[in-house]
Amino acid sequence: MPQIAMLGSGFIARFYADSILGQRSRDKIVSVYSRRTESAGAFAMKYGCVHATTDMEVAIAHPEVDMICIALPNDLHEAAVMLCCKHGKAVMTTKPLGRTAAEARRMLEAVEKAGIFNGYLEDLVYTPKFLKALDSVQNGALGRILWAKSRETHPGPHSDWFWDLEHAGGGCILDLGCHCVEIARSFIGKDIRPVEVMCWAETQVKPIEAEDHAIGLVKYENGAIGQFEVSWTFRGGLDLRDEVMGTEGTLWINNFLRTGLEMFTTGKGADYVSEKAESNTGWLFPVGDELNDLGYNHMFTDVFNAFEQGRAPRETFYDGYVVNAILDAAYRSARTKLWEPVVL
Amino acid sequence: MPQIAMLGSGFIARFYADSILGQRSRDKIVSVYSRRTESAGAFAMKYGCVHATTDMEVAIAHPEVDMICIALPNDLHEAAVMLCCKHGKAVMTTKPLGRTAAEARRMLEAVEKAGIFNGYLEDLVYTPKFLKALDSVQNGALGRILWAKSRETHPGPHSDWFWDLEHAGGGCILDLGCHCVEIARSFIGKDIRPVEVMCWAETQVKPIEAEDHAIGLVKYENGAIGQFEVSWTFRGGLDLRDEVMGTEGTLWINNFLRTGLEMFTTGKGADYVSEKAESNTGWLFPVGDELNDLGYNHMFTDVFNAFEQGRAPRETFYDGYVVNAILDAAYRSARTKLWEPVVL
Amino acid sequence: MPQIAMLGSGFIARFYADSILGQRSRDKIVSVYSRRTESAGAFAMKYGCVHATTDMEVAIAHPEVDMICIALPNDLHEAAVMLCCKHGKAVMTTKPLGRTAAEARRMLEAVEKAGIFNGYLEDLVYTPKFLKALDSVQNGALGRILWAKSRETHPGPHSDWFWDLEHAGGGCILDLGCHCVEIARSFIGKDIRPVEVMCWAETQVKPIEAEDHAIGLVKYENGAIGQFEVSWTFRGGLDLRDEVMGTEGTLWINNFLRTGLEMFTTGKGADYVSEKAESNTGWLFPVGDELNDLGYNHMFTDVFNAFEQGRAPRETFYDGYVVNAILDAAYRSARTKLWEPVVL
Amino acid sequence: MPQIAMLGSGFIARFYADSILGQRSRDKIVSVYSRRTESAGAFAMKYGCVHATTDMEVAIAHPEVDMICIALPNDLHEAAVMLCCKHGKAVMTTKPLGRTAAEARRMLEAVEKAGIFNGYLEDLVYTPKFLKALDSVQNGALGRILWAKSRETHPGPHSDWFWDLEHAGGGCILDLGCHCVEIARSFIGKDIRPVEVMCWAETQVKPIEAEDHAIGLVKYENGAIGQFEVSWTFRGGLDLRDEVMGTEGTLWINNFLRTGLEMFTTGKGADYVSEKAESNTGWLFPVGDELNDLGYNHMFTDVFNAFEQGRAPRETFYDGYVVNAILDAAYRSARTKLWEPVVL
Ligand SMILES: NC(=O)c1ccc[n+]([C@@H]2O[C@H](COP(=O)([O-])OP(=O)(O)OC[C@H]3O[C@@H](n4cnc5c(N)ncnc54)[C@H](O)[C@@H]3O)[C@@H](O)[C@H]2O)c1
Ligand SMILES: NC(=O)c1ccc[n+]([C@@H]2O[C@H](COP(=O)([O-])OP(=O)(O)OC[C@H]3O[C@@H](n4cnc5c(N)ncnc54)[C@H](O)[C@@H]3O)[C@@H](O)[C@H]2O)c1
Ligand SMILES: NC(=O)c1ccc[n+]([C@@H]2O[C@H](COP(=O)([O-])OP(=O)(O)OC[C@H]3O[C@@H](n4cnc5c(N)ncnc54)[C@H](O)[C@@H]3O)[C@@H](O)[C@H]2O)c1
Ligand SMILES: NC(=O)c1ccc[n+]([C@@H]2O[C@H](COP(=O)([O-])OP(=O)(O)OC[C@H]3O[C@@H](n4cnc5c(N)ncnc54)[C@H](O)[C@@H]3O)[C@@H](O)[C@H]2O)c1
Repeated sequence: MPQIAMLGSGFIARFYADSILGQRSRDKIVSVYSRRTESAGAFAMKYGCVHATTDMEVAIAHPEVDMICIALPNDLHEAAVMLCCKHGKAVMTTKPLGRTAAEARRMLEAVEKAGIFNGYLEDLVYTPKFLKALDSVQNGALGRILWAKSRETHPGPHSDWFWDLEHAGGGCILDLGCHCVEIARSFIGKDIRPVEVMCWAETQVKPIEAEDHAIGLVKYENGAIGQFEVSWTFRGGLDLRDEVMGTEGTLWINNFLRTGLEMFTTGKGADYVSEKAESNTGWLFPVGDELNDLGYNHMFTDVFNAFEQGRAPRETFYDGYVVNAILDAAYRSARTKLWEPVVL
Repeated sequence: MPQIAMLGSGFIARFYADSILGQRSRDKIVSVYSRRTESAGAFAMKYGCVHATTDMEVAIAHPEVDMICIALPNDLHEAAVMLCCKHGKAVMTTKPLGRTAAEARRMLEAVEKAGIFNGYLEDLVYTPKFLKALDSVQNGALGRILWAKSRETHPGPHSDWFWDLEHAGGGCILDLGCHCVEIARSFIGKDIRPVEVMCWAETQVKPIEAEDHAIGLVKYENGAIGQFEVSWTFRGGLDLRDEVMGTEGTLWINNFLRTGLEMFTTGKGADYVSEKAESNTGWLFPVGDELNDLGYNHMFTDVFNAFEQGRAPRETFYDGYVVNAILDAAYRSARTKLWEPVVL
Repeated sequence: MPQIAMLGSGFIARFYADSILGQRSRDKIVSVYSRRTESAGAFAMKYGCVHATTDMEVAIAHPEVDMICIALPNDLHEAAVMLCCKHGKAVMTTKPLGRTAAEARRMLEAVEKAGIFNGYLEDLVYTPKFLKALDSVQNGALGRILWAKSRETHPGPHSDWFWDLEHAGGGCILDLGCHCVEIARSFIGKDIRPVEVMCWAETQVKPIEAEDHAIGLVKYENGAIGQFEVSWTFRGGLDLRDEVMGTEGTLWINNFLRTGLEMFTTGKGADYVSEKAESNTGWLFPVGDELNDLGYNHMFTDVFNAFEQGRAPRETFYDGYVVNAILDAAYRSARTKLWEPVVL
Repeated sequence: MPQIAMLGSGFIARFYADSILGQRSRDKIVSVYSRRTESAGAFAMKYGCVHATTDMEVAIAHPEVDMICIALPNDLHEAAVMLCCKHGKAVMTTKPLGRTAAEARRMLEAVEKAGIFNGYLEDLVYTPKFLKALDSVQNGALGRILWAKSRETHPGPHSDWFWDLEHAGGGCILDLGCHCVEIARSFIGKDIRPVEVMCWAETQVKPIEAEDHAIGLVKYENGAIGQFEVSWTFRGGLDLRDEVMGTEGTLWINNFLRTGLEMFTTGKGADYVSEKAESNTGWLFPVGDELNDLGYNHMFTDVFNAFEQGRAPRETFYDGYVVNAILDAAYRSARTKLWEPVVL
């Protein structure tokens, strides 16, 4: 029953808090760090944190806190992790682990050296559909896996820092590709080594330096192929689909836009539909229970159970590091136009 | 944080236990009653109950128990409820509340007289999709509700007692129609009075006395119409769909057979797909997370929160009684071929 | 290779003409009748008719014409049919055949007496999906048919006369139910006698005398049950769905709103989506090829082939008469609230 | 009203003949060539050809024939085209035009030199859904096109020659990729030049020399990207899906496995479901009208109208040549692992 400090009070921090408090209902967020006093206070009020601070280290070092949840922009993950190591506190970090594999590797080495519990919060390998599908794959229902594709596209992120290459570390490849790469890797087998990557990336629409659309192929040592399709230019909502082909079967997962709930409305009353929905009239496709359907609940259950049982969670910093290494190869490939090796 | 006694150790008892233990993970089933020592023992072992008994009253009266969960065949609900009243213990009962409205009314009057907490475990008005949809309806996205249809059909129940009119109290109307009626009633408005019912019912296929297929219309005092379609003869799995029409919009819910997870397999390895799936090769449509998608998690969260907060849950014995009254009218109509009044 | 006279130049006349000229491309509409000279002329221009008139009998009697296509409001079908009989010309009539079974019976007796070719233009039992499905049913893929449901709902008709009880003869039961009844009857078997009907009907929304929403059950002599769901109050487009249950299988047909073509648009450029679509932004579900997907092509191919081969088409005035008899029973039932016999 | 000679009497020859005779019903196949007398005779009998021969040139030269339809294995297209040129007969060829761009270019130059009508039978840019979608794209509903993906996968071809690299000229890239490339090119704009191609290809499952799975990216001069996904190892039927993204919208097309007709059967009676369906029990997804839904009808209507009106059809040998040039680049890329220029 970990006592948590939340770093950050933005979009994902609130999603995490809703899940942490709602799911097991015995876990507590005791402390929250945010830059501005009002944000920290508002978050503490809403989620019942007994402590709020604008000093990150104070939140981490708080004596009642035994696990840190990092929900900050990408460029702050490393500093936050280093403070957790310094104070010997368990840590879980939102995706991506680092902006680069070098950053991720430093974090991985630090937590290993510090001997602290570490979890990588890749929620999309914890969605109920993914877990069910993975189970079928592992039972052999699809035979040998030949190809695993994951697609995440939407009309673009909500906060300014995403659009700043320095803070974000990349565009949609880093922001969305990290999900896709880990999904495909999980279906193919986390013990199979990714070998090389070919990637096309372009800034087709948005007035930014980073890429807003990319497609990549990841070759694994056993001949299986992973594929990611990511974009910040998609129109129509949040498109989250996976496909897997094996010698004995096929899997199609639609996590968001077509899940069995369809609504037409002329527009009265329907205010919030779901994450990144583009309109609130006409045919709409709300998701029943985003926290559960996007995997947050099963993710935190696994992380907390692991913490309590003294084992590693399903996804650790090592997985985050592998993802960063694959994405680094993708960025190199987009520039060199060559298949680039995955350096691990 | 209620301490629960489970009455019954069959199909629904296990679903309930999985949800109760899995969801909030602080609730406990301390006692279990089952007819046979081995069944009670096996259930206690699996779900960590400290006490197991073949005497129903002993389970109910157990000093550490403060809430009873009735998961017994329909003809045993009343006796179990009366014992809860006798011992002044909170009670929640699986659907249908009674075999008839008369039975349901006696239970309702008994719990009111005993002044005990009572919950009616209608999980299908707690599915994530239903809750999201109801929210839209209550926000006015569909305007005035004109029609609400709910359909539940599958190839037939798993236990012998369902097929016995004495024990079950009816066929698919009672078994499945209770869900459909409460779903439609919830969309139309639980404060709107159901007035009369027209129902067709037939035993088309199965070698039983009870009906295996029925269609009914329920007229409400505001002119809205509810519809149920139920069958134990459907081929293809468990068909759980709702539709709602309003002056400003339309809602389609598919809870089971088409929810965004599709799998083709030649047949190796895929052993369990989902409740009442008819095959394990070819195109299959598994559900990601049955406990959550069928509403059990949100249902128990509401019931336990209500219990702890000293308020009534969303669904009480009164709702179960209204459902029984509507179904009684349906049975009469199937015989008389007339629109039959709902007697409340 | 029939030479056709088209009576009427409205909505369905144009659909028919597009199909007649587009499909076999050897059939010709030589004459057109319409009340106003300009309408007749415009139609003749567009579809290459060599003759246009504002006198119905002149069009029918035209020496080059050997087949009449009736595309007039419901109250004019009988008079037009009688003129065809008088002139001994083959006739095909849009649905419904008559406003009542009495009207339909007079038409049936007249064409039989005159010995002329007669076709009933029920396009929805000629859609490619229906034909494929019927084939499966007739091959036994579904076993014995237990239930066949057809649903047609949309936001309401386009022309004034539909809303006038005298001209139209009824509301959505007659206008849309005629399709549904014949679809269900075809799946159950056209040689099986419909016995009695129970129907609920209401004017829930529109400021009209006729019903704008109805649900009906049709019992067949072999115990099978047909169901129709019709409405002029549905929001979201044109909803055309059929479902069939048999002892060995299940069939779901979606003819319009979900056929595999999905488009999201912010709204530039998409002017016409499809019949009765309610908006042209957001998620839209256009139909690829309405003429073909709604059955017009296969219908006229059957009718013309039948004419050329001297056989009856799949659907004749007799079928139209049976449909009217079932709908008459439905109207009686909506008033008496009783199961009403089908009088044939 | 062309008089046609059919070269070949196999799978596609029969599909073509069904469409040619069924659609306009005024077109005639007067002659058929096949290697074996019995095959030619059987085809002639079935499709009412007055002439059947085992000598290709005789069929082409037949005085009543004015248009040749080439439905032979890929390695025979060139020789057949040359004979059409020699005899000055109009020609239409199934896909792919050649096994290589060099072959295709020789055919293109020959028909241009001979001045004969030439059509490239790419049916998938004539499907009703494609035509409707293209119309929306051309009206601007999607804004500027950014990406167009086409996927065609199935469990593998039906005839031996497909598996022989010499006769077929390639594996699934040539066999299926030719469709995908032309679909994407049509959405992006046939006047936009394809610049370079990156392709991954592998023989993952089948015991053949040629590739059985491939994914390719085609960059166009305006920055748009085409994508093809092709395989002979897919399990579950024939997967035919397209997706298009533009600055203002999104398009999803499913041409085959999910088109609104769904059937569950325990297995009695359902013999033929649709092309490449893998089973005939469980959940099946038949296509209503393959000839129409796969584009054959609209394709031949365009080709014959073009022939009669003395204009070029929508798809000519030039288009077939461009497709071959793109696929040549894909094959080079699969070997060199580089982006390879499209040489036109
Ligand atoms: N599904 C997912 O796993 C998922 C979804 C969204 C975001 N994320 C990740 O979560 C992280 C945060 O993203 P978000 O969407 O919550 O962003 P956000 O902009 O909504 O919130 C960011 C938070 O960090 C704080 N912050 C910003 N700059 C800061 C600075 N310089 N110093 C200290 N605090 C600062 C903000 O005040 C805010 O509380 C990112 O790493 C992102 O990739 C993950
Ligand atoms: N979604 C739902 O809400 C849902 C689903 C299924 C069943 N149910 C309801 O749950 C109840 C039990 O159904 P089930 O499916 O679990 O049935 P089941 O046959 O699987 O289990 C019934 C349990 O009751 C016990 N039992 C049977 N006869 C008994 C007797 N005479 N005395 C004492 N115990 C006896 C059995 O041993 C078993 O433990 C029914 O009321 C049913 O309607 C609800
Ligand atoms: N799927 C179908 O089969 C289908 C679809 C729509 C309509 N219909 C049927 O087609 C018929 C016509 O419907 P519509 O939708 O084309 O209607 P419409 O109003 O669009 O056209 C009716 C035509 O009849 C003419 N007309 C109207 N009143 C007249 C009068 N008093 N005398 C002479 N001509 C008159 C009009 O000028 C017009 O040409 C109806 O019977 C309707 O039920 C069938
Ligand atoms: N959708 C489409 O457009 C589509 C679909 C399938 C095939 N095709 C194309 O059609 C062509 C034929 O394919 P198919 O599927 O009909 O193959 P098939 O094997 O079914 O038929 C091939 C025909 O060619 C004849 N043939 C084979 N070898 C021959 C030889 N050496 N000399 C003379 N005749 C010979 C065969 O007897 C047979 O009549 C191929 O180019 C293929 O790519 C197109």
